[in-house]
Amino acid sequence: MRLPFTLLIDPVPADSLQQDFADTFREMDSSAPALRVGELSTQRGDGVFETLAVVNGHPQEVEPHISRLRNSARICDLPVPNADQWRAAIAYVVSRVPQRGEIALKFVLSRGVEHGPAPTAWLHAAAAADFSIVRANGVRVITLDRGYPRGVAERAPWLLMGAKTLSYAVNMAAIREAHRRDADDTIFLTTDGFVMEGPTSSVVLRIGGEYVTPAPSGAILHGTTQQSMFDYLRAQGASVGYRDVTVEELRQADAAWLVSSVRLAVSVVALDGAAFAADQALTDALNTYLLARTA
Amino acid sequence: MRLPFTLLIDPVPADSLQQDFADTFREMDSSAPALRVGELSTQRGDGVFETLAVVNGHPQEVEPHISRLRNSARICDLPVPNADQWRAAIAYVVSRVPQRGEIALKFVLSRGVEHGPAPTAWLHAAAAADFSIVRANGVRVITLDRGYPRGVAERAPWLLMGAKTLSYAVNMAAIREAHRRDADDTIFLTTDGFVMEGPTSSVVLRIGGEYVTPAPSGAILHGTTQQSMFDYLRAQGASVGYRDVTVEELRQADAAWLVSSVRLAVSVVALDGAAFAADQALTDALNTYLLARTA
Repeated sequence: MRLPFTLLIDPVPADSLQQDFADTFREMDSSAPALRVGELSTQRGDGVFETLAVVNGHPQEVEPHISRLRNSARICDLPVPNADQWRAAIAYVVSRVPQRGEIALKFVLSRGVEHGPAPTAWLHAAAAADFSIVRANGVRVITLDRGYPRGVAERAPWLLMGAKTLSYAVNMAAIREAHRRDADDTIFLTTDGFVMEGPTSSVVLRIGGEYVTPAPSGAILHGTTQQSMFDYLRAQGASVGYRDVTVEELRQADAAWLVSSVRLAVSVVALDGAAFAADQALTDALNTYLLARTA
Repeated sequence: MRLPFTLLIDPVPADSLQQDFADTFREMDSSAPALRVGELSTQRGDGVFETLAVVNGHPQEVEPHISRLRNSARICDLPVPNADQWRAAIAYVVSRVPQRGEIALKFVLSRGVEHGPAPTAWLHAAAAADFSIVRANGVRVITLDRGYPRGVAERAPWLLMGAKTLSYAVNMAAIREAHRRDADDTIFLTTDGFVMEGPTSSVVLRIGGEYVTPAPSGAILHGTTQQSMFDYLRAQGASVGYRDVTVEELRQADAAWLVSSVRLAVSVVALDGAAFAADQALTDALNTYLLARTA
């Protein structure tokens, strides 16, 4: 019952029939070194990851996260993760951490040590930052050119745009650029002016009463929390949809949210320095829903 | 006198007047864990690096590599490396490794452990792969779209294109794509058809008797070995230059090379599946020159 908590796992093949994975798990002291400098995750950002929320002892969106990890691995020619093993590893970590409060659980599949025989994998649970203020007050957002034209991901799969890789230096730089401009976060645009996603979030807009998000594609990750948000909205009788969204539509939207697994839904309250209308009542209701999920 | 050899260093500020850095160096067992899973290098590919060659006990292009590391750090808002400390660290590693043969010495500056107080840094020396065959026989190369139009790096510095970051997943994917197409390596093009660089090398062409390489810019690293190649060519009385190069010029070039610190110069012998003229005599002379440098 302590944080941070680190579990190294020895990945088994996707088609293994193994059911008991206890011998593939190894608890680590989080403050002690666990990785060699030859690790390709650290040398090359060469691996894939997911981060899910554990709220009051309940890991959220486990299946969508495992499914996306497997998809990312396929795109990166990594051995496809064994879903049973990762489910068991998540359950193991959840059983070892505090059963109250919000925890960010990151799980990583790295290509392993250079010239090594096997990938490296681990889970790392840490107390989530306190997002209560930003959930209540929203975020100031800037738009930034992601440098890619729309459609390039499908033409150039080696750009790995549909994979959630460890090569996140640009994502982190985009957030620093936002801070430099007195904002909190970023929405990436294609060079030809289509809305993509945030560096660590999905973008959802309300346009003419409909909730829309850019269609997940080779270039845009399918947001796990965005899917939960759509589930909630559908249950409320709202109309939801996936489609291309231009930056002009973003500027004229009735409301916009950045949505992610641990911070959950936050209202966009300023866009490129101009005030932006927010529906804080819906944001509050949505986060209440997201925090109350028990599966 | 052993490989691999790992040295962790505790970075001092760029303006420190410290001259003796021994107390900032710590030798590590390369086979033992050295990094925590909270490392941002491994979580986010968030750091910068260089790789230089040590040939028969001589580290090569030390100043250009340190200079480029410092430039990469500036672009990434990392604390600028203290050049004296890195020089001393390189000298320390070189004194501890075999004085015969070719060694790849990688040095890394990471943003450090998440929420940690300081960056993490290390050097890692390993025996270089045997590149004698590829230096003699050349490489089959494919061109791949890097997804970015020319000029985007200057407009969008948050893309970090001029920095050599640890976020190399795309570079590695491009090399895997080359292998998939029965080739050895890749030359990246802009979406509008300009030659950029290889995933781990610079591109030099001979066009009408002149040696040219795409101008280093926000989007293209200034190759340390390319600069040495130009020094050699200038001393031979050849004309060298930096300028924009189109893919059509690449296809019609008299000869082309991929140039990098450890593999050194290799001839392009096939381009996108078609045979490509090589000047192997020059390649041999150039590598003899590069391997014989003692500074």
